[in-house]
Amino acid sequence: MTRDEARAHDHADPIARFRDRFALPAGVIYLDGNSLGALPRAVAPALADTVTRQWGDRLIRSWNEGWIEAPQRLGARIAPLIGAAPDEVIVGDTTSTHLFKAIVAALRHDPARRTVVSEAGNFPTDLHIAEGAVGCVAGARLKVVERAALAEALDDDTALLLLTHVHYKTSERFDLAGWTARAHAAGALVLWDFSHSVGAVPIDVTAAQADLAVGCTYKFLNGGPGAPAFLYVARRWQDRLANPVSGWMGHAEPFAFQDAYRPAAGMKRWLVGTPSILAMASLEAALDLWDEVDRTALAAKSAALFASLAEAGAAAGLACVSPTDPDRRGSHISFRHDHAYALTQALIARGVIGDFRDPDILRLGLTPLYLSHEDVWQAGEHLRDVIATGEWRDPRYAKRNAVT
Amino acid sequence: MTRDEARAHDHADPIARFRDRFALPAGVIYLDGNSLGALPRAVAPALADTVTRQWGDRLIRSWNEGWIEAPQRLGARIAPLIGAAPDEVIVGDTTSTHLFKAIVAALRHDPARRTVVSEAGNFPTDLHIAEGAVGCVAGARLKVVERAALAEALDDDTALLLLTHVHYKTSERFDLAGWTARAHAAGALVLWDFSHSVGAVPIDVTAAQADLAVGCTYKFLNGGPGAPAFLYVARRWQDRLANPVSGWMGHAEPFAFQDAYRPAAGMKRWLVGTPSILAMASLEAALDLWDEVDRTALAAKSAALFASLAEAGAAAGLACVSPTDPDRRGSHISFRHDHAYALTQALIARGVIGDFRDPDILRLGLTPLYLSHEDVWQAGEHLRDVIATGEWRDPRYAKRNAVT
Repeated sequence: MTRDEARAHDHADPIARFRDRFALPAGVIYLDGNSLGALPRAVAPALADTVTRQWGDRLIRSWNEGWIEAPQRLGARIAPLIGAAPDEVIVGDTTSTHLFKAIVAALRHDPARRTVVSEAGNFPTDLHIAEGAVGCVAGARLKVVERAALAEALDDDTALLLLTHVHYKTSERFDLAGWTARAHAAGALVLWDFSHSVGAVPIDVTAAQADLAVGCTYKFLNGGPGAPAFLYVARRWQDRLANPVSGWMGHAEPFAFQDAYRPAAGMKRWLVGTPSILAMASLEAALDLWDEVDRTALAAKSAALFASLAEAGAAAGLACVSPTDPDRRGSHISFRHDHAYALTQALIARGVIGDFRDPDILRLGLTPLYLSHEDVWQAGEHLRDVIATGEWRDPRYAKRNAVT
Repeated sequence: MTRDEARAHDHADPIARFRDRFALPAGVIYLDGNSLGALPRAVAPALADTVTRQWGDRLIRSWNEGWIEAPQRLGARIAPLIGAAPDEVIVGDTTSTHLFKAIVAALRHDPARRTVVSEAGNFPTDLHIAEGAVGCVAGARLKVVERAALAEALDDDTALLLLTHVHYKTSERFDLAGWTARAHAAGALVLWDFSHSVGAVPIDVTAAQADLAVGCTYKFLNGGPGAPAFLYVARRWQDRLANPVSGWMGHAEPFAFQDAYRPAAGMKRWLVGTPSILAMASLEAALDLWDEVDRTALAAKSAALFASLAEAGAAAGLACVSPTDPDRRGSHISFRHDHAYALTQALIARGVIGDFRDPDILRLGLTPLYLSHEDVWQAGEHLRDVIATGEWRDPRYAKRNAVT
């Protein structure tokens, strides 16, 4: 591809206009939106209003003027992005806390089934939290197997299959409907982690008949650093499962101040404590633009950006570990390289921000909302140059101190 | 007291200057800082920097430029307010989630002890969460008794005594050292909830030898709506107790991306998921002024404000349910009245914002940092007038729809 060809793609791009809705720093090609999404311009004024007017002027009254419904209101905004009904999603807490609640709840549903099955190399917090959650249910255990062994790991002791839809390293995507059906055929529930797929690939939990799901909002949804996560519980499960972290916000009448916990009906019982309203306000502003996004165009652009970088990587002799079939991957591309850390640093020095994933992965996020075809073409040129010149061998790129 | 006398107190008030550090709306006397603290002026610029520069410009790089240490950094700022060492406190999650972690951890410490003892009428989420937490430990149970029966409820089956330092309704304060010693004498640990006392009354967990504590930061610490809560674990317990909500941020090496959970040393193991950086930034700005506050002067002013409102309430014939001894209460005053809801609404209509607590409590928060003696004197006058005129009987104040 040439720069002119990339520009021609941008000229024809039906979602090119969304780039202006983000505040992007000059001199940077940001290929890490799959880790922390860029700043939507709508966030700063929304937060200023939340701080100055809602908190400063209205003070405690704001709880009656919209704050208290924020978890449900934002959940309803996220629902269409995963194919859920508006009353099947709430926002608040972290992905980790949502995972904990959902895993313990699923394990308690059928005492005859004691095993949570998950994949080796799943995103760490999913496995870590599962380890903690099984410790909270008598006789429960966690079985972690390689992807190829997942199907045969499902048996009549399986309470829950816990999978991350798009793999954080490789970008591999599970077949949502297929694996949900496999879990159900074994008599198990399924809990999906959409952290790396929501806002990146099409998701339809209703068509797939998924039971439970969680997801992060600070990656492709651009909700801000550490933005609150969402929890989906299919309506048929909402009142049949119990939230073990039974905080007052999930009480049927939180302001009746009763000693005994009595769970609310529906998704409300999945709330725990008081969520950060500032964090919710940022996310809410970030979600606005999703109402306008043509998600078919989004997926097509993601595929085109991937093809562009895959071509550059191949030309540089890099091994791409992400699937070539767009339906089997997310919206990031990963290359394996013995010196992936140094390669990542050399790219950052050129203003191309991607990230390194231990031990040998260079991961580049492709966010169609704010990356142009020319950006990604340019990043590909940098990638080829960094390899061709060998500049990644510079000793200053050798030190490993990345924390994210 | 007369207005002139109140003004004289303000003139002599050594902490009067802090009022200017808050953005207070005109026409309001805010007596609900014990529920949602007022807006410190430092918050808006700090948040603007966090959003525009740290998130917008620095993007993912900000995780290496201060974000990742925020839970420990803010914990160290809160530590002196409760008499803890800087490495004994972290910030993040909600009070409810911290309670859950601490209760499960304490129950697992000694399998011979299975009971959590707490007080009937404790703040609901403490009891609700305890109910959920005991469900996560084999054989564990929750024993909720009246305050007068607490001492005899402690026995050789007690794993944990869970108490809220200052009662959210009555303002009654437990003797921190005394009850900690009682729990220890019975062989139990103690978990204090400082939500209604931190920033309001002197606390010294080190002198009291307290084991565990949690607290909210959106009341007297003015961190913002739903600001993240803190967890204190005495150093001697940090590595002997295990966090059941074992998320990746508490891993010894979160960015090594290992399948197996291996807890970090010290307070870091008590972290769970990625905290909201926007919520942390607001709290951090709010904490700045505490370095300058003379806490002896703060306590003296709280006592004087209490006396002023108590006098007005007595003159109006209201029954005060808060202790008269300043060492036995927090920094709010509560009156019992059969029509407390209507009374609260009638005061709000006059610009005096307090709150109603089901079923019959009018609760007025006394925040010495931003309330003047004249404010509180004026509020007392309104209280007397609302009773004297009977205007609280107006039907528009009868409807009960408050949510906070």
